[in-house]
Amino acid sequence: MPHSTTHTTITRVSANDTQTSNDILAVEEPLEIKVKYGSTEKNISVTMRTPGNDEELGAGFLFTEGVIKSIADVASVAVVKENTVLLTMADGVEPVLNNAERNFSTTSSCGVCGKASIDAVKVACHVEDVYPYDNLKCTPDLVYSLPEILRKEQAVFEQTGGLHACALFDMQGKLLLLREDVGRHNALDKLIGAALNNKMVPLSEHILMLSGRASFELVQKAAMAGIKMIAAVGAPSSLAVQMAEEWNMTLIGFLRGQKFNIYSGSQRIVNL
Amino acid sequence: MPHSTTHTTITRVSANDTQTSNDILAVEEPLEIKVKYGSTEKNISVTMRTPGNDEELGAGFLFTEGVIKSIADVASVAVVKENTVLLTMADGVEPVLNNAERNFSTTSSCGVCGKASIDAVKVACHVEDVYPYDNLKCTPDLVYSLPEILRKEQAVFEQTGGLHACALFDMQGKLLLLREDVGRHNALDKLIGAALNNKMVPLSEHILMLSGRASFELVQKAAMAGIKMIAAVGAPSSLAVQMAEEWNMTLIGFLRGQKFNIYSGSQRIVNL
Repeated sequence: MPHSTTHTTITRVSANDTQTSNDILAVEEPLEIKVKYGSTEKNISVTMRTPGNDEELGAGFLFTEGVIKSIADVASVAVVKENTVLLTMADGVEPVLNNAERNFSTTSSCGVCGKASIDAVKVACHVEDVYPYDNLKCTPDLVYSLPEILRKEQAVFEQTGGLHACALFDMQGKLLLLREDVGRHNALDKLIGAALNNKMVPLSEHILMLSGRASFELVQKAAMAGIKMIAAVGAPSSLAVQMAEEWNMTLIGFLRGQKFNIYSGSQRIVNL
Repeated sequence: MPHSTTHTTITRVSANDTQTSNDILAVEEPLEIKVKYGSTEKNISVTMRTPGNDEELGAGFLFTEGVIKSIADVASVAVVKENTVLLTMADGVEPVLNNAERNFSTTSSCGVCGKASIDAVKVACHVEDVYPYDNLKCTPDLVYSLPEILRKEQAVFEQTGGLHACALFDMQGKLLLLREDVGRHNALDKLIGAALNNKMVPLSEHILMLSGRASFELVQKAAMAGIKMIAAVGAPSSLAVQMAEEWNMTLIGFLRGQKFNIYSGSQRIVNL
């Protein structure tokens, strides 16, 4: 069982006092994600992540980057050695490796403006048409309740102060899944990987909650999994809002106490 | 002049009131970083960044990733079209492209454990031996003063709540440089790019302040620029602490009000 926290000795300094004490750190280590199809084995990515749920991270990453179309594309997922996860494709399935390159180097599909990037996601996304219309509704009270539920469940964050969390709620505000990581994109990939394993994708009748800011990359990964509602504790970026608008997603930011901002898709928040 | 913020219309929801109002977002757009040497032109990276200081970001990125050894390797830096920066190498200089791959895909140098990653940085770093010993000293009072100075100078963060900041101070606590970005690594690359332009590197008699958490990647980039002292508002990761210890760097975390934790290199903090 990999450890997601580690102990260290620190010097605590304050105006009144200096003392040596024990402290807990969030572990950060590289994970190598590899795929095997036929007799070919390929390195796809190295990501700095918090150990734990590495199989979910591997599967989620391949799915949100468009390398696989569904979990059925994968015959097996295994941690083959420390910090290396190998995903073996099902017979006859070839991974779409061009899509993976999008995040690591320039390709024609990842363009030089936000619009091109959004278009690239649209092309790569397999779930966009599953529920083009929806009747999702949610009250402000339900939205207010999410951060407290997340905080109560967050195992590692409270200890170290160093982890990002992603949580998946149903439309009644019930927490279904929670994942944490030093990298916010890893936390989301782990969550989506777990949802894939549980046959829950597309996540079109759920709310995704983010413990930090909403970047383009996170909204993009959420879109790949069919998510229609995102609530973030922090601020969204311009491209995150643009993406949410074009995809008809509800994007909430600055969710703190009994307050939040709706940046896109306000039709789904009722009883205002 | 590129814009680092943009206006949008949002719905503000609170327990007492719902209103439509204007809001400011941090702009996030992809920047393509290209290098030219002889008649060869290569794409090095696409990073999601806040527009502004793109030449600094390009130069800083190439330097902190070990693609160039010094700013003298670069003949010119130019924004050749929207969201594309081209760095033309000086006559006879070949960029070290293997190093750039480290962050985007697997190479033999970026290993499967933290130790291997740290070793890879050591190999790539050009400034480590410049000041192997130092007599840097700094008081807790000086450390306490840094966040307030940073906050007062932060132009964009206050407006949007969506940007990471990096600041460079001298050992008297004077602010020398400040850069902001939606991506924390971009903010640091911009800062180091600016320092390169000002012939300030190695930054071995300076304090680097980070508005958020201290990840391995940030400590690694700081090490590449010869930085010996880092103070972060947030938590460090395990690998950030390990890297700081091995490089004899002072790493401070949770710097808030008149309190902080020293994770490594406490000998430089005096009058405790």
